[in-house]
Amino acid sequence: MAHALRLAQRGLGNVWPNPAVGSVLVRDGRIVGRGWTQTGGRPHAERMALDQAGEAARGATAYVTLEPCAHEGRTPPCANALIKAGVARVVTALTDPDPRTAGQGHAMLRAAGIEVTEDVLSAEARHLQRGFLLRVTEARPMVTLKLACSLDGRIATASGESQWITGPAARQHTHLLRLRHDAIMVGGGTARADRPSLNVRGFGPRRQPVRVIVSSGELPDLPPEGEDFGPILRASGPVQDILRDLAAHGITRVLCEGGGGLAAQLLAADLVDDLVIYSAGMVLGGDGAAAVAALGLTGLAQGPRLQFRRAFRVGPDLCQIWSRDGG
Amino acid sequence: MAHALRLAQRGLGNVWPNPAVGSVLVRDGRIVGRGWTQTGGRPHAERMALDQAGEAARGATAYVTLEPCAHEGRTPPCANALIKAGVARVVTALTDPDPRTAGQGHAMLRAAGIEVTEDVLSAEARHLQRGFLLRVTEARPMVTLKLACSLDGRIATASGESQWITGPAARQHTHLLRLRHDAIMVGGGTARADRPSLNVRGFGPRRQPVRVIVSSGELPDLPPEGEDFGPILRASGPVQDILRDLAAHGITRVLCEGGGGLAAQLLAADLVDDLVIYSAGMVLGGDGAAAVAALGLTGLAQGPRLQFRRAFRVGPDLCQIWSRDGG
Repeated sequence: MAHALRLAQRGLGNVWPNPAVGSVLVRDGRIVGRGWTQTGGRPHAERMALDQAGEAARGATAYVTLEPCAHEGRTPPCANALIKAGVARVVTALTDPDPRTAGQGHAMLRAAGIEVTEDVLSAEARHLQRGFLLRVTEARPMVTLKLACSLDGRIATASGESQWITGPAARQHTHLLRLRHDAIMVGGGTARADRPSLNVRGFGPRRQPVRVIVSSGELPDLPPEGEDFGPILRASGPVQDILRDLAAHGITRVLCEGGGGLAAQLLAADLVDDLVIYSAGMVLGGDGAAAVAALGLTGLAQGPRLQFRRAFRVGPDLCQIWSRDGG
Repeated sequence: MAHALRLAQRGLGNVWPNPAVGSVLVRDGRIVGRGWTQTGGRPHAERMALDQAGEAARGATAYVTLEPCAHEGRTPPCANALIKAGVARVVTALTDPDPRTAGQGHAMLRAAGIEVTEDVLSAEARHLQRGFLLRVTEARPMVTLKLACSLDGRIATASGESQWITGPAARQHTHLLRLRHDAIMVGGGTARADRPSLNVRGFGPRRQPVRVIVSSGELPDLPPEGEDFGPILRASGPVQDILRDLAAHGITRVLCEGGGGLAAQLLAADLVDDLVIYSAGMVLGGDGAAAVAALGLTGLAQGPRLQFRRAFRVGPDLCQIWSRDGG
């Protein structure tokens, strides 16, 4: 299942509105097939693993990070495919919250005489598939907020200079972060001031993330949609509404790259699931521009709480990842 | 030498105005004596290791993190002691910059027919003995600036609440930090508002750090000097002058625990050697109190630059250590 989760991760940012699923087929202690959700959502992970295994799937155990689908969509249901291929046992990490499946996948398998084991590594799977789960259960995508700032949380000097605080390695690493998201969101001020490319570079041809500009004002001149750039969506209004609209479009994972005002709105509404901070070894002082604008907190207990996940060096900078409590 | 450096570390904060030195005596591949500078500076590390080794020192190799002293101080010169004990070889990490020794220790040993190897792990030794070296070469102690703040660099909410941002483990870890310093410095505002204890607790009876209050105003009521509290020094004026005075008193390592104004003065004067940040998993927003006050930078290149050294968890919080470039 740990291997299936690593395969699933390959699909993040690339398969919306579908979940990024991973699947491994094992027979007699040997892996006979591996699959993960392909670009745009199909083929599904199970289909890919079964095709790879061919006849070897008969009698095998299928590890799948999400309950196999039970409904006819753009592809025939995977539960059927597993039954037809003659697998002996299916191990899953999560029940699919999509009402069209919601336990029916497991039931179909059991009805066909297949042994089913559920909830294996479910915490890890829930973490990986937060975007898909939140979209189904809360009608919003998962939100990652990225900050690139000085050690005292500043994104520009008092005089306004901001390029570059973090180094080339951190900026390159940001593309890896973008790669795992369906959409990149920035405030209008940041879009106008920094003209961020909001695309993924350095990973070969791929599905580019949707560019979401939150602004009721004038939009800057952005490169048109094409091979290297995703579609542009202009949004305004409360962040809750913007996220609901994005979820309705099928977006499961959004990366917010600033500015401080949009970051503050997301944090104040308790909508940040992952906070990724690139810290550079400099101090810009209290007169520098804050990475997060005013929150109007009247007590420490009111502030959004995040749990440390990990920290690692990216060139000369430090990258910290903090997640919503219990996320 | 790595082992000798670890022994030397035990003396940090406990041996001023002396350097914290470590020494290991090895004969026939076995350690026959280990020593480190004792409370208040004596006995010296070499003396302690020689006493431990006794007759076994004859023909041994002595690893010492600093050139053995050549001058008669409160103790007889260690170079003489090593010669008398009959060691065959001396390996050192650094030449003592104290003009009373400055190469004469090495010369005395060589004149007595002892083989001398210099500059082994000298970068590590320089880092460890920064306080002593800066006091001798720049007439100021080494400065560690400690910040305990939210992920966006805030030490209090807009409403002024600040206790506690970091958890009990981080506050306990601060005592380990204090333990390694000769003096703890705070601004008058912080002293009045937080009434910090500025002592070391939880490590048994020991030499307590000097409490330095930087304030031209009224001092708060602080516990008097005694077993659990070091002497109180009141200071005011430019930080450069304050540090020069502390060095003249023999202080080699100062820990600054805030507030934001004093932190800014030290950073602006480029006097911070180590920056230790305890980050708590919360965000307080741009209207919260800044950990570092205004620096008035007019460009990114003007800001103080620090190199990442390490990051580790302390309870739910993250501790980051950054050092002055090349420090």
